[in-house]
Amino acid sequence: MLNIAVLGCGRIGRMHAENIAKHPRARLAGVFDVYAPAAAEVSAHLGTTNFATAEALMESDDVQAILIATSTPTHADFIEMAAKYGKPVLCEKPIDLSLERVNECARRIAGSNLPIMLGFVRRFDPGHRAVRKAIEAGQIGELHQVTITSRDPGMAPDAYIAASGGIFRDMTIHDFDMARFILGEEVETVYATGSRLVNAALMERYDDHDTVTVQLTSVSGKQVTILNSRRAVYGYDQRVEAFGSAGMAISENHANTNMHLFGETFTYQRPALQNFFIERYQAAFAAEIDAFVEAVEKGVAPEVGFEDGRLALVLAEAALKSLREQRPVKTAEVE
Amino acid sequence: MLNIAVLGCGRIGRMHAENIAKHPRARLAGVFDVYAPAAAEVSAHLGTTNFATAEALMESDDVQAILIATSTPTHADFIEMAAKYGKPVLCEKPIDLSLERVNECARRIAGSNLPIMLGFVRRFDPGHRAVRKAIEAGQIGELHQVTITSRDPGMAPDAYIAASGGIFRDMTIHDFDMARFILGEEVETVYATGSRLVNAALMERYDDHDTVTVQLTSVSGKQVTILNSRRAVYGYDQRVEAFGSAGMAISENHANTNMHLFGETFTYQRPALQNFFIERYQAAFAAEIDAFVEAVEKGVAPEVGFEDGRLALVLAEAALKSLREQRPVKTAEVE
Amino acid sequence: MLNIAVLGCGRIGRMHAENIAKHPRARLAGVFDVYAPAAAEVSAHLGTTNFATAEALMESDDVQAILIATSTPTHADFIEMAAKYGKPVLCEKPIDLSLERVNECARRIAGSNLPIMLGFVRRFDPGHRAVRKAIEAGQIGELHQVTITSRDPGMAPDAYIAASGGIFRDMTIHDFDMARFILGEEVETVYATGSRLVNAALMERYDDHDTVTVQLTSVSGKQVTILNSRRAVYGYDQRVEAFGSAGMAISENHANTNMHLFGETFTYQRPALQNFFIERYQAAFAAEIDAFVEAVEKGVAPEVGFEDGRLALVLAEAALKSLREQRPVKTAEVE
Amino acid sequence: MLNIAVLGCGRIGRMHAENIAKHPRARLAGVFDVYAPAAAEVSAHLGTTNFATAEALMESDDVQAILIATSTPTHADFIEMAAKYGKPVLCEKPIDLSLERVNECARRIAGSNLPIMLGFVRRFDPGHRAVRKAIEAGQIGELHQVTITSRDPGMAPDAYIAASGGIFRDMTIHDFDMARFILGEEVETVYATGSRLVNAALMERYDDHDTVTVQLTSVSGKQVTILNSRRAVYGYDQRVEAFGSAGMAISENHANTNMHLFGETFTYQRPALQNFFIERYQAAFAAEIDAFVEAVEKGVAPEVGFEDGRLALVLAEAALKSLREQRPVKTAEVE
Repeated sequence: MLNIAVLGCGRIGRMHAENIAKHPRARLAGVFDVYAPAAAEVSAHLGTTNFATAEALMESDDVQAILIATSTPTHADFIEMAAKYGKPVLCEKPIDLSLERVNECARRIAGSNLPIMLGFVRRFDPGHRAVRKAIEAGQIGELHQVTITSRDPGMAPDAYIAASGGIFRDMTIHDFDMARFILGEEVETVYATGSRLVNAALMERYDDHDTVTVQLTSVSGKQVTILNSRRAVYGYDQRVEAFGSAGMAISENHANTNMHLFGETFTYQRPALQNFFIERYQAAFAAEIDAFVEAVEKGVAPEVGFEDGRLALVLAEAALKSLREQRPVKTAEVE
Repeated sequence: MLNIAVLGCGRIGRMHAENIAKHPRARLAGVFDVYAPAAAEVSAHLGTTNFATAEALMESDDVQAILIATSTPTHADFIEMAAKYGKPVLCEKPIDLSLERVNECARRIAGSNLPIMLGFVRRFDPGHRAVRKAIEAGQIGELHQVTITSRDPGMAPDAYIAASGGIFRDMTIHDFDMARFILGEEVETVYATGSRLVNAALMERYDDHDTVTVQLTSVSGKQVTILNSRRAVYGYDQRVEAFGSAGMAISENHANTNMHLFGETFTYQRPALQNFFIERYQAAFAAEIDAFVEAVEKGVAPEVGFEDGRLALVLAEAALKSLREQRPVKTAEVE
Repeated sequence: MLNIAVLGCGRIGRMHAENIAKHPRARLAGVFDVYAPAAAEVSAHLGTTNFATAEALMESDDVQAILIATSTPTHADFIEMAAKYGKPVLCEKPIDLSLERVNECARRIAGSNLPIMLGFVRRFDPGHRAVRKAIEAGQIGELHQVTITSRDPGMAPDAYIAASGGIFRDMTIHDFDMARFILGEEVETVYATGSRLVNAALMERYDDHDTVTVQLTSVSGKQVTILNSRRAVYGYDQRVEAFGSAGMAISENHANTNMHLFGETFTYQRPALQNFFIERYQAAFAAEIDAFVEAVEKGVAPEVGFEDGRLALVLAEAALKSLREQRPVKTAEVE
Repeated sequence: MLNIAVLGCGRIGRMHAENIAKHPRARLAGVFDVYAPAAAEVSAHLGTTNFATAEALMESDDVQAILIATSTPTHADFIEMAAKYGKPVLCEKPIDLSLERVNECARRIAGSNLPIMLGFVRRFDPGHRAVRKAIEAGQIGELHQVTITSRDPGMAPDAYIAASGGIFRDMTIHDFDMARFILGEEVETVYATGSRLVNAALMERYDDHDTVTVQLTSVSGKQVTILNSRRAVYGYDQRVEAFGSAGMAISENHANTNMHLFGETFTYQRPALQNFFIERYQAAFAAEIDAFVEAVEKGVAPEVGFEDGRLALVLAEAALKSLREQRPVKTAEVE
């Protein structure tokens, strides 16, 4: 059994705590949240220790590994703290909104062989993963083009947008990681277009964009297109399409049920898509915990690590620069 | 070139005339209709001879083969007449509403080696045919269960129902033939249930049923279910499903276009189905003419012949008897 | 919190125990199994009491409700025992293989107002349930025809077949309940056909059938077709189709992932279906526990009760009689 | 009846000739081809005049309109010639590979009010057209993002590539027009990426690319992505997806039949896609002729005219410039 404690008891932290509690080879060893009532509730509900401070949690001999689900600006600090205590980490994305801070964190934890896993949960989605496996198995031959569609079901609240770091660092970052996951190689060039079509006033206030298309070219000339929108009225649109020399693999959307309805003017109508990431990626979140437990058990590097978190942020920086300067940007320019 | 003349210039006759005109190895050699204006219009539109009588048409040296698309009660007479003139026939289903008359016709044309093809057009539908081919190719192993769904888009007019001979002889007859086509063997037992759910008053008036489910068991124990309704509001529902020891093959419906619509409360909504048989079986009607031309050219028996028309009617008789006596009926009882 | 104890720690009992443990308003209050090691393992894994006898479990003040997941021949006894102790029951189907024994059990527990719920889990499947809800909401108008396809992924072991009570009582019983659930009214007539197509030798040995089609007619003339096979090589085939005067609703199969693969000779290929009921009906099993907890909490009759269990068995008896006597059988004949 | 003559009797010219012959309100008034045997064969097969020269065809009083299906370098000359003779034109795309020549042609025919229609056949595809109609009907709200997937089933022959003018002018040109059709407004910026992944040697020889992704931004910030490949092994991949503020509309691929196959390791497998444009766009080619006939009959401008042909070429020029200079290019730069 791996004793994992959870930092941060918001919606995501709580979900992770429950998944840890359900995992056959993991135990929820405690929780902490700066907002004490949140931690108290989770600790009561799941029957686990409510630590008074993050340090106390890190220090505890009963805690063997740390899951960081706190607010973004604290991630790098907690990673460094866990490294100091020699405890493996599973950290929610992103490491930080600032690439500088991420690079600093990388230097500080350099040399440690601790498993540090980044919570790019979509890599663990059975459908997206099946696409990657089909590529690895040669089922679509050499990969040529990838299309990643990722649209949120509704505009996030104003305060969320304000603190998000912009759409590339907040939302597209998942797709940047997905692009690297599906590609199996690095991106060389980034070209981004951004528009304000959902809520122009809000986007202008924060110099942000709600509708973006990002074009990535890999070192060997493979092409990736990322389609993002902050609002798809039909639900959380999450698709990955990989086209290659011998075929194509598509990870399709999930509807709420597999019911198809026929009426006077329509046929094969399906319900709205699963809303939101906690429902859509339910299986993926559980598989993520499993991958973390297994990596720690076996003492191997997790499938998605700190450097993956850093490289996704590099792509976000490049996209931002591309959008501002209206030109394709080499990733080498922003590293 | 095969010179084919068409008897009957109603909606179906006219469509057949056009398909003959378009066929690369066929020529429309003339038309006839008891209602002269209908024949006149088709003959003018397609630039072909308008024969004054059916006999004149049959006698003409320019006419090498006959397509019968007249009203049902005349089919058997015209088949016998064509046999007398030694001209191959493609006859619309059914041969006759009376099994006795069909048997008599069979006796009268016995001995002739003329190709006589029955217009069970659905055998030529690319999707349904692909199901049969998948079976023949062993792709689903031994066939175990077949489901044929066949629902009309709307209740036929009162006069049509009155003259139809009842749902089994008029509508299910296509499915009886489809069952034999998919099975590749004969039916032994028929059990039918019928209800009056679409238009009870109309159905009572003609002692008919608008909603029927028919259960067939083949000589080797394969099971076939036929689902019929006189009205599917979403369009002409035409599906065939074949389940076997090594897989399953389904011929799915055709929507008007392949457009999928997503809205606030629904996803993957498709348009209504193609309406009606002339649209849905457009490719099949053309392929039927092609099969007829080829059979006559090669002097071989057509894939679907007089005896197939007769056996489909035997199944209709058995279904009617089953419904009336509320028990399964052996086909041998009605032969 | 409702304290529920589980009788029977086989595969299904264990799954139920886990679902109870996960439920936010339920607590796993203990387990019992005649095979002690099975109970010991579950009790250790889930940290719950391992009762020495079923009586001890029933007597315990800590146990407020009972889930019966033991072997079929013990179900009725345990229901009667739970009734004696005044404890609500959720019992796996079927109540018993003998309708006589079920009727006896019904008499013995008569008068008690205890919630007794039958584990017809498919009623809680989100897709099948959405079909029922669409009907209730009037989305397909008056119901006319229902098709229930239910095929197991592989032939059960010899010993299982021997003790199963035959395909109707063991497998079709779920579909009989589904038919009643979708119909919203009672069945009047049952006609069954059965064949030995998957493993004829095994089926002959036990006078059983591996491939059956059952035709039900409801009191108002609605038609239901049930298609069963003991082996579908492509996986656990579970579909419900409801056709009505204003539309159609279909609960479609679930594939292992939503990945679609394209290759040189095929397109839109999806993976095999979820195998087996524990995976396919995962959400349904959790929803079933939830419905039971809610019924007990509110002191109301569960949605699916003892009488539903009895009536499904009546349909199984009628199907068996129909198959033996080769005629449609009225349910009144076997009641 | 509109008497239409066809210039060019290759594969496409022949298909157009047949469609004209089948059209209820059009008549095939003659053909011409510089390769006399081709014209002779079509004229014999369809029973129409074989003109000795293009001039003779243009001059003939029996010819009321001209369909140009000759080789690309002759299109502009024949348009000018038809304009001189005052005969309406339906011209295959592109007008010319040189934007300069197109502009010159525009100047030469300026002032004439002749209907000149460009053969951007995909606008007439029922599925793609349904997407446009859904937008016009407000069914997806304001348009935000468009994805056009267009992949040929196999690499064109060497000689074809050599004369094609490059992928943007030859293949993407259809998608540029589709983008304008779906957008309903003009494109401002073009960014293109190109790779040599299918046949690098061939592409290098002609300084061409076989795999391109083109990003368009419209004047109001709508985003269009075009995905092209010279070879999709699963067939001719033709899809259009339009995402908007109130929904999404997708025009999906057409398989050869609607048969779905299930086997031991797969489910819902469909056959390869229709190959190639003559099959896939069969309905569209017929609708195109119909639109041309109707425009001439009514004396109105065709839905897709000379300027549409010119603007598609402007986008191709911009894409080529973008690829060469590795930067987004404004359409105004190449006009």
